[in-house]
Amino acid sequence: MALIVQKYGGTSVANPERIKKVAERVARFHSEGHQVVVVVSAMSGETDRLIKLAREIQAQPEPRELDVMISTGEQVTIGMLSMALIARGVPAKSYTGGQVRILTDESHTKARILEIDEKRMRADLDSGKVVVVAGFQGTTEHGDITTLGRGGSDTTGVALAAALKADECQIYTDVDGVYTTDPRVVPEARRLETITFEEMLEMASLGSKVLQIRSVEFAGKYKVKLRVLSSFEDNNNGTLITFEEKSKMEQPIISGIAFNRDEAKLSLLGVPDRPGIAYAILEPVGSAQVDVDMIIQNIGVDGSTDFSFTVHRNDYQKTLDLLNNTIKPSTGAREVRGDNKICKVSLVGVGMRSHAGVASKMFKTLSEEGINIQMISTSEIKISVVLDEKYMELAVRALHKAFNLDSAMPPAKG
Amino acid sequence: MALIVQKYGGTSVANPERIKKVAERVARFHSEGHQVVVVVSAMSGETDRLIKLAREIQAQPEPRELDVMISTGEQVTIGMLSMALIARGVPAKSYTGGQVRILTDESHTKARILEIDEKRMRADLDSGKVVVVAGFQGTTEHGDITTLGRGGSDTTGVALAAALKADECQIYTDVDGVYTTDPRVVPEARRLETITFEEMLEMASLGSKVLQIRSVEFAGKYKVKLRVLSSFEDNNNGTLITFEEKSKMEQPIISGIAFNRDEAKLSLLGVPDRPGIAYAILEPVGSAQVDVDMIIQNIGVDGSTDFSFTVHRNDYQKTLDLLNNTIKPSTGAREVRGDNKICKVSLVGVGMRSHAGVASKMFKTLSEEGINIQMISTSEIKISVVLDEKYMELAVRALHKAFNLDSAMPPAKG
Repeated sequence: MALIVQKYGGTSVANPERIKKVAERVARFHSEGHQVVVVVSAMSGETDRLIKLAREIQAQPEPRELDVMISTGEQVTIGMLSMALIARGVPAKSYTGGQVRILTDESHTKARILEIDEKRMRADLDSGKVVVVAGFQGTTEHGDITTLGRGGSDTTGVALAAALKADECQIYTDVDGVYTTDPRVVPEARRLETITFEEMLEMASLGSKVLQIRSVEFAGKYKVKLRVLSSFEDNNNGTLITFEEKSKMEQPIISGIAFNRDEAKLSLLGVPDRPGIAYAILEPVGSAQVDVDMIIQNIGVDGSTDFSFTVHRNDYQKTLDLLNNTIKPSTGAREVRGDNKICKVSLVGVGMRSHAGVASKMFKTLSEEGINIQMISTSEIKISVVLDEKYMELAVRALHKAFNLDSAMPPAKG
Repeated sequence: MALIVQKYGGTSVANPERIKKVAERVARFHSEGHQVVVVVSAMSGETDRLIKLAREIQAQPEPRELDVMISTGEQVTIGMLSMALIARGVPAKSYTGGQVRILTDESHTKARILEIDEKRMRADLDSGKVVVVAGFQGTTEHGDITTLGRGGSDTTGVALAAALKADECQIYTDVDGVYTTDPRVVPEARRLETITFEEMLEMASLGSKVLQIRSVEFAGKYKVKLRVLSSFEDNNNGTLITFEEKSKMEQPIISGIAFNRDEAKLSLLGVPDRPGIAYAILEPVGSAQVDVDMIIQNIGVDGSTDFSFTVHRNDYQKTLDLLNNTIKPSTGAREVRGDNKICKVSLVGVGMRSHAGVASKMFKTLSEEGINIQMISTSEIKISVVLDEKYMELAVRALHKAFNLDSAMPPAKG
């Protein structure tokens, strides 16, 4: 008998029929003798509907009141799923975030979980009930409703698993696991049986949109066994996210390839090469609420250097204006350049720590395809390159093949 | 400076535009220096939408979980109205029933309010905020969400007014007050400036669907000054419901005429006239969950009597079967008769206490129109007659004129 936390996203609970399907799976685990806590999102489209309603009242909705509104989406789902379980003869009880006392800080619309009181859930589980909890939401110590930000239901799932010391946290979604890369780009992409937390973090932040990154960090911190599964098929075990590294012998060099087109590149050329220059450039950017991803500064020559960074593509024009109007004059730089037709491709794998030559093999593969590399950034378990966006699919496919990630058989339909 | 509780129903908050209109009125009271607590219903149609969703899961939805779902309707509205107020520069804060601790019993979907903790509201009011509270809902002492039944938002409004000792509880609705009778039937119907609680109770239970009857009882019990107003126009003061009787001099004999077609009539003829016979007839009816309205038993002749009562028309067949199959044999009655093509017309007025001849004037008026009276029932401030349903409009119009209720001018558009 295990204690399992299952989380179902918006598409898995999109309508009454799908909610009944979820109840069917939960009932199966329950009948096998497991204790089950289920975390659910709002029915897909519901959160957007509520945000739209709020914006019709106030262009920038008051965060406290927005949380009051949008938290209702998950509240409807918990009622429906509990009913569906009860209708199947499975005793079940629903709780809002506030009722199960998921205590958060007061940062409305992006609150952080501080503490969970698991006593009420534990009592229900011990009396044979399935516990159904609204994801995405919590309460401040004053009883105000908070939400955890988009994708926060994953975080709720992992946090409950940590608080209850669950044997496993299962995240049900519309894909059946984490793949070596996006199967829509590389048909030979393989589902990974396991992936390490560090790799998952790099994959998630790089655009493999399977799990919310904060939930992965949370799982790593509290050593929660996290598994990604499909809520639409039951024929495999998904991908288990582990926090132990496998022995070097079994370790593939590269676990996966992440990529995205969401970024834009900006460069400041001929910047005086003096201490504090990076701060002088990036402080105004940060103050303008622009998040910076890659940052590259090469060694200076003749007292001046070139400085480049990437931002989200939506922030491109704003950042370009900031560089031209403020930062160029203040730093005495010679020239500003920008490009929003780029992509980023990254190799991820804990195995590259112990294998030399991964970078040079990557660069050779791209060169053989005639692809010019514009920027390079490396970490312990990741190498990222910025390319012209038109080469993205070509680069991903070539690298997937070069690093032996192609499967013998085509992957299961996601 | 007064403390006012305002309650707005579903049609008054049906969409963002109307919610902004409500905010406009609330802001006006606030700017005049009043302390305002606003109670809102769900946007019209929302509660029905949620009930329909629940029924797609479970034909008879689990009451606890149904309350979790349907309470979200009001929760969305409080967020929206608070935003609309804040957008106008009026400080405002929303509360669910649970947050403001409207403590109820555990009767899900029809809970009764036990207690309200007004401290949090009081602190907000004293700091200049408008307090926006979700109607229709509360919490059990264990923190479970409850709802008060259809129309429960009126009850929330009155209960908050009682707890806060408010100067007035204003119920905004789609009519601008209580009329002498339904203006759709009698175009000359007049809006009443005041009506007594007792009259209002009789009017409400007889089908003048302006206020939920439970809220009127509540207001009477706690001496809350209750006013019904239109949320769509501001050109009159609606109808004030008072608990002091006016002096006899100003007292009109009849305040209004209520009527409905919702009932059916059943008679048991030739019942042995012995002690306990009424109980023997009505106990099985009550056990079958059928509510009885009028009950009439005439004096017995030759050891037998006739017994008649009315029930809701939906319960007609069920009750008829019960009389034929169970009650007739058990009481030894001679015959069962039923009729579901009836209507009930009632004169209501505290003034009739001190005026003889109201009943005879009523019967004379009906007789002059050629209308046969099937049943008569009287109380201190009400005379009800049961008629063939086809005479309903004719009877109401004739009585409205006979008792001088017609206004010189047509009533304001509701």
